[in-house]
Amino acid sequence: MTEPFGIALVGCGTVGGGVAKLLLEQGQRLAERAGRPLALRRVVVRDVGKARAAAIPANLIGAELQTALNDPEVQVVVELVGGTDWARRAILAALAAGKHVVTANKAVLAEHGTEVFDAARKHGRAVAFEACVMGGVPVVAVLGQSLAANQVLSLQGILNGTCNFILTGMSAQGRSYAETLAEAQQRGYAEADPTLDVDGTDAAHKLAILAQLAFGATVPVPSIDRRGIAEIHNLDIRFAQELGYTIKLLGEAWLDATTRQLALHVSPVLLRHLTLLAQVRGADNAIRITGDAVGETLLYGRGAGQMPTASAVVADLIDLAVGRAQRTFQAMKLWSGGPSNVVLRPSATVRSRFYLRLQVADRLGVMADVTRCLADHRISIASVVQHEAPEDHEEGTVPLVIMTHTALTEVFRAAVAALDRLGCIVSPSVYYPVED
Amino acid sequence: MTEPFGIALVGCGTVGGGVAKLLLEQGQRLAERAGRPLALRRVVVRDVGKARAAAIPANLIGAELQTALNDPEVQVVVELVGGTDWARRAILAALAAGKHVVTANKAVLAEHGTEVFDAARKHGRAVAFEACVMGGVPVVAVLGQSLAANQVLSLQGILNGTCNFILTGMSAQGRSYAETLAEAQQRGYAEADPTLDVDGTDAAHKLAILAQLAFGATVPVPSIDRRGIAEIHNLDIRFAQELGYTIKLLGEAWLDATTRQLALHVSPVLLRHLTLLAQVRGADNAIRITGDAVGETLLYGRGAGQMPTASAVVADLIDLAVGRAQRTFQAMKLWSGGPSNVVLRPSATVRSRFYLRLQVADRLGVMADVTRCLADHRISIASVVQHEAPEDHEEGTVPLVIMTHTALTEVFRAAVAALDRLGCIVSPSVYYPVED
Repeated sequence: MTEPFGIALVGCGTVGGGVAKLLLEQGQRLAERAGRPLALRRVVVRDVGKARAAAIPANLIGAELQTALNDPEVQVVVELVGGTDWARRAILAALAAGKHVVTANKAVLAEHGTEVFDAARKHGRAVAFEACVMGGVPVVAVLGQSLAANQVLSLQGILNGTCNFILTGMSAQGRSYAETLAEAQQRGYAEADPTLDVDGTDAAHKLAILAQLAFGATVPVPSIDRRGIAEIHNLDIRFAQELGYTIKLLGEAWLDATTRQLALHVSPVLLRHLTLLAQVRGADNAIRITGDAVGETLLYGRGAGQMPTASAVVADLIDLAVGRAQRTFQAMKLWSGGPSNVVLRPSATVRSRFYLRLQVADRLGVMADVTRCLADHRISIASVVQHEAPEDHEEGTVPLVIMTHTALTEVFRAAVAALDRLGCIVSPSVYYPVED
Repeated sequence: MTEPFGIALVGCGTVGGGVAKLLLEQGQRLAERAGRPLALRRVVVRDVGKARAAAIPANLIGAELQTALNDPEVQVVVELVGGTDWARRAILAALAAGKHVVTANKAVLAEHGTEVFDAARKHGRAVAFEACVMGGVPVVAVLGQSLAANQVLSLQGILNGTCNFILTGMSAQGRSYAETLAEAQQRGYAEADPTLDVDGTDAAHKLAILAQLAFGATVPVPSIDRRGIAEIHNLDIRFAQELGYTIKLLGEAWLDATTRQLALHVSPVLLRHLTLLAQVRGADNAIRITGDAVGETLLYGRGAGQMPTASAVVADLIDLAVGRAQRTFQAMKLWSGGPSNVVLRPSATVRSRFYLRLQVADRLGVMADVTRCLADHRISIASVVQHEAPEDHEEGTVPLVIMTHTALTEVFRAAVAALDRLGCIVSPSVYYPVED
């Protein structure tokens, strides 16, 4: 057991630098916990000359992946390059060369999970990926091991730190989406091109991986109904606060245990102020998991960043060195392409309460028209907020906010479409699901 | 891998009934996740004739532990009887008979961990104990595996559901400790004799186990400084709320990473309202763990109850059936009696802010005397609350609440002792640490 466990790092940016730092600076700690030394054997980078934060011995650094794959003293390849093209090929090459793989690349697994896991099975190697979802939050281990006695019934996750940072800033400071995004970019919480974060794609990738772990369901990412945060208006944040709610971007999944139907979506959701998820601020992540035996559990922590993500990668390395990850890999049969005992259903078939903001003409009879239209669709109203316009208010428009009782999403959407055809509604209506 | 994994249940009360229910009713699910069937072979109970909730085949039930230990088809003994005497002997006998052990018995591990783990090592068997701490909250797995790359720096846990239920009730309904305890007993959240819960002993047992996992420290339970909740007055709950805080009973541990000194205590603590721990209500549990790489993480869930605890026990059974738990057991070297690289220090050497409530005579010069006494001890005042007494107020006493800046606990306690000797202080002063 004292033979070192040899590691090749492929990619050495932010997270890779953190992994190298732990391996080089905490060698004794990691050897104690893994039962043998974790030895950094190779670091494969595109630009060999570039300065690295961690003091990596120059003789370990090279530009050729093949050198690492040929090295018999390398047992595991850690893929940290990002993207889905070269990274996918590097992972497949590593497995074909008989190496285990640790990856933080959620896009590769969400889009090519079956190919990657089939290759690992074929070559008798394991793939570990704790860092793919929620960085330092150990949701992969908890779903795969700690909750293994349960049928998971639902997941609700704040899966994207960038979006949570922006929404927290908008709520706390009353600033616009654009202003808060600019601050997030300045502080390194958002990319120069933030599209994949703010449009919900990143959260959908993570949700697809969680669906595999929790439900054994292989969910094509494009099939996940998704709304981002770019259209959230300050007005909605303020109305939500007034009603006792906080708006969060959630990735959610619900299993109907009777019909075995699974619905998923990524959407802004109104959550009651005092729920734990609503209290998750800044770039942090959290997930609420409900299991049929364990009940409700919640995991919270840093969803990204150098050392939290490196912590997850190194936990996977220790698991492989100890020999646990190989057994987990065999037992879980992820992305195995076998018949899933779960059927996907459109998220439009989910029942929910809704927040609805209408921009209405400020004139007689509008409330009657709106409420009649909702009643015709059998949407029941729970509460209404319309603030008094000033006495000297010019002819114009006012926001009207309605909280509904529970309704089928597709029926509610049809009602909104009908409302938007009414003459008194002056701009497209805004709506979000409401949860506890 | 299709050979069944044979299980003997020792004790079949609430939790045992839940474990039996999962094994008997979810056989297919568990077999899929363990890679082989989990077979309930024996159920050892004191009273064979007693009716059981789960439909356990009568031929499995017996009163003799030895029968289970002699059965070559039993690979693991699940100890769920409670207490530290017979349970300890049963665990040692099971290990000596070559069985793995799963236990939910925190007292046995906290008090006899070294003996139990030495026996397991001697006989080449594993002990798994996820259910010992916080029921359905997977803190044992997270500390042992997911955070293995980290040096844990601190733990703060709501470890006892009974205490949290009582404190939540006192806060929400303004009722007294005695009234809320009576409700907790009625609803099954507190024992007829609640002493071990409300005096902090149960939390101290759990904290000792957490200290072993997080710091490799074998902490004698009696050495853990502990205060319970029985003396918490409504007045303190109300003042705390007014100041923006919630009172929670926490088990806490702090490592000084430089000196490697570890301090622990169990104490009521004032937490800011909007922190996640302060939002944990009712009988739920949660723990905040700070690691040097991962930063702050939090786990939340049901800390007790039939199915949450059974979920943890069955997760351990799956881990053993898969072969992971054996590797974890070997790698972690818990209670191995080797030289710990951590030294205990008294919790009186911890620095903290404090809430201090004095019952003072309502007369001239009292504030001057009190603040002078604190200044003499170099305790700096952050804020003071003394409400105006009614104009027609008779000569009497009033509560005076002081929030201090950070001070050394032992210095603060000396200041309180000095205050209590002042003529103007009419009853012993009340104080609690204040944290964010």
